[in-house]
Amino acid sequence: MTDFGRTTLPYCSFVRPGDDRACVGVGIGTDVLDLTAAAATVVPGRRDLFGGGSLDALLAAGPQVWHEVRLALATHVERDDAALAEHLLPGGDVELLLPFAVADYVDFYASEHHATTVGRIFRPDGEALPPSWKHLPIGYHGRAGTVVVSGTPVRRPSGQTRAADGTVGFGPTARLDLEAEIGFVVGAASTPGEPVPISAFDQHVFGICVVNDWSARDIQAWEYVPLGPFLGKSFATSVSPWIVPLAALEHARVSPPPRDPEPLPYLRDEQPWGLDLELVVTIEGTVVSRAPFSSVYWTAAQMLAHLTVNGASLRTGDLYASGTVSGPEAGQRGSLLELSWNGAEPVTLDDGSTRTFLRDGDHVCIAATARLADGTHIELGQVDGQVIA
Amino acid sequence: MTDFGRTTLPYCSFVRPGDDRACVGVGIGTDVLDLTAAAATVVPGRRDLFGGGSLDALLAAGPQVWHEVRLALATHVERDDAALAEHLLPGGDVELLLPFAVADYVDFYASEHHATTVGRIFRPDGEALPPSWKHLPIGYHGRAGTVVVSGTPVRRPSGQTRAADGTVGFGPTARLDLEAEIGFVVGAASTPGEPVPISAFDQHVFGICVVNDWSARDIQAWEYVPLGPFLGKSFATSVSPWIVPLAALEHARVSPPPRDPEPLPYLRDEQPWGLDLELVVTIEGTVVSRAPFSSVYWTAAQMLAHLTVNGASLRTGDLYASGTVSGPEAGQRGSLLELSWNGAEPVTLDDGSTRTFLRDGDHVCIAATARLADGTHIELGQVDGQVIA
Repeated sequence: MTDFGRTTLPYCSFVRPGDDRACVGVGIGTDVLDLTAAAATVVPGRRDLFGGGSLDALLAAGPQVWHEVRLALATHVERDDAALAEHLLPGGDVELLLPFAVADYVDFYASEHHATTVGRIFRPDGEALPPSWKHLPIGYHGRAGTVVVSGTPVRRPSGQTRAADGTVGFGPTARLDLEAEIGFVVGAASTPGEPVPISAFDQHVFGICVVNDWSARDIQAWEYVPLGPFLGKSFATSVSPWIVPLAALEHARVSPPPRDPEPLPYLRDEQPWGLDLELVVTIEGTVVSRAPFSSVYWTAAQMLAHLTVNGASLRTGDLYASGTVSGPEAGQRGSLLELSWNGAEPVTLDDGSTRTFLRDGDHVCIAATARLADGTHIELGQVDGQVIA
Repeated sequence: MTDFGRTTLPYCSFVRPGDDRACVGVGIGTDVLDLTAAAATVVPGRRDLFGGGSLDALLAAGPQVWHEVRLALATHVERDDAALAEHLLPGGDVELLLPFAVADYVDFYASEHHATTVGRIFRPDGEALPPSWKHLPIGYHGRAGTVVVSGTPVRRPSGQTRAADGTVGFGPTARLDLEAEIGFVVGAASTPGEPVPISAFDQHVFGICVVNDWSARDIQAWEYVPLGPFLGKSFATSVSPWIVPLAALEHARVSPPPRDPEPLPYLRDEQPWGLDLELVVTIEGTVVSRAPFSSVYWTAAQMLAHLTVNGASLRTGDLYASGTVSGPEAGQRGSLLELSWNGAEPVTLDDGSTRTFLRDGDHVCIAATARLADGTHIELGQVDGQVIA
């Protein structure tokens, strides 16, 4: 269990062993506060939001209620309210569930270092970035129904691939990869036909999670022209069980990289939402990457403004992710595709074994932290998954 | 109101004027049977399936229940049961709703004539079809949250486009298009990690609807490399309010076009699901296309087998569409992109006006019929939409 300290106050959905009634939880240190039970004390006027056991009702309630509940929690935690103690459980004693019902899932491609490295790998003599890349945050819709919570085993998918000699075959992917990403969870819905301006980002987005967007590179390579990734991604996307409210990240805001050319007006951010986060990627216990989210070119507020600029509406539970986060250094790349340069440069683990892509049995963990303006760090949770045959 | 005759027995969700309680309906002739009310008579053991007012519970109940309910309905209709009469409403007296909650929405690209024509328009000197096209049904995920029911006005979306001189601009799309498609509605869920074989198609898919996959061609052209369509499609997808059960189409099954090369084993169909349907596209009252669904290269059963071959699971309410249906003749093309050859050959309407792409105010209607083995036709409903500024 992550140690969340006493001020981050992330939310989860959990069940006690042997029980099948889901509860809403809040992370305090390494404990879980049963908010479904404690709401009568902490937020008596909002008890109805926690009876369903998932975050769905809280997400839908909107930013004023998010603030009210968080303030009440912070007040009770600060004064070490004895009334909370009876509802605290050791984090290791509960099973964490998918915290909300995912409505639509969108994945972006917002890290310039990632997109550039991928471009160099696949088009060594061409332009590294697609023509539109610096004009808009490129994104696509993924499969919401296969978003799973951290800890869910991920079965190696089978599919069509094309060999170097042009032969089309079928079988388990030989290039199973991870992608280290940050996900953004939409709470408040928007009105169909009305774009959400960049300034309204925190009126709609409730918080963040850590995402592993598992990818089968060989399946993806054969299928993706011209309509984009499909079966190479749709078998599973893992998310951390903890949703950290945006409010907990206020002091992790930093300026994003300079944007050149200047974006169109709907993508211009006066108070930008760069975030000083780090994603630490571990395979079988070996840290293989430390990816800096602050280097991501497009912010989550820009992604949201772009996603809705055509009038597409948001629903409670929409999830959108940044795309693979990679920094400028070799040890900051958020996928094995990049870390192993498409298999040409195997990664060596602490046990001496090497990886180009993932093996059956591999445990993959992506943990995120935020650095606050005062130099302290907070934990944001992690997403785990084991590859099974 | 479509005349559904007495044997098709399609389902809808509706409200009476001034009422806000949704009911499940069945189309009989031009009337709507209030099945939520009539269930006590028709299927007393299954009343619980219709209390929610949408098709969700019926969809989830699975193929044995679908058969049981349809059989009961057919029996009561055949003997002209007086008990039904009191629950019949004229179709024009009710408001039709989105008939089910859309889980994931996937759009395919399964018509060879469509894909070939698009390829010829955009790559006149290159290969018309992408390399994988004859090996697998190419598809991508769309936005489930903006699937709307027939009759919902469609606001012309704005977005980024790039002019011929390379200038990137922003504004309302100048190339708003329709796409005539057939949609397939998943009822019974599948198990994560377990592909759904082609033979299990009718154990999971409940029925069909008519789809207009509105598209902004200029937005799409600028954004779609390398991750596929996004804002060019995500603003709206319209579906007909009537879901026609697969069981009603048993006698519309025909052999699909010959497939060459032979597909991989998981895509081979012994009892193929080609369907002899016609989509009639009307703009402002002028028929501009009659597209034959029987010419579509990949069947819906192949699409489903492909969609799940990587272990991706199905949920109740998943919707997948064929992609634009176009036949071999000029008057059989299911989009204005093709009908006007990307604007080079305007289409003339009955009032003498011409269209390259859609104008504000245009009413678009796509109506589908099925030809049965005995030569008779049945109506499958229609999807309407008006473009607003």
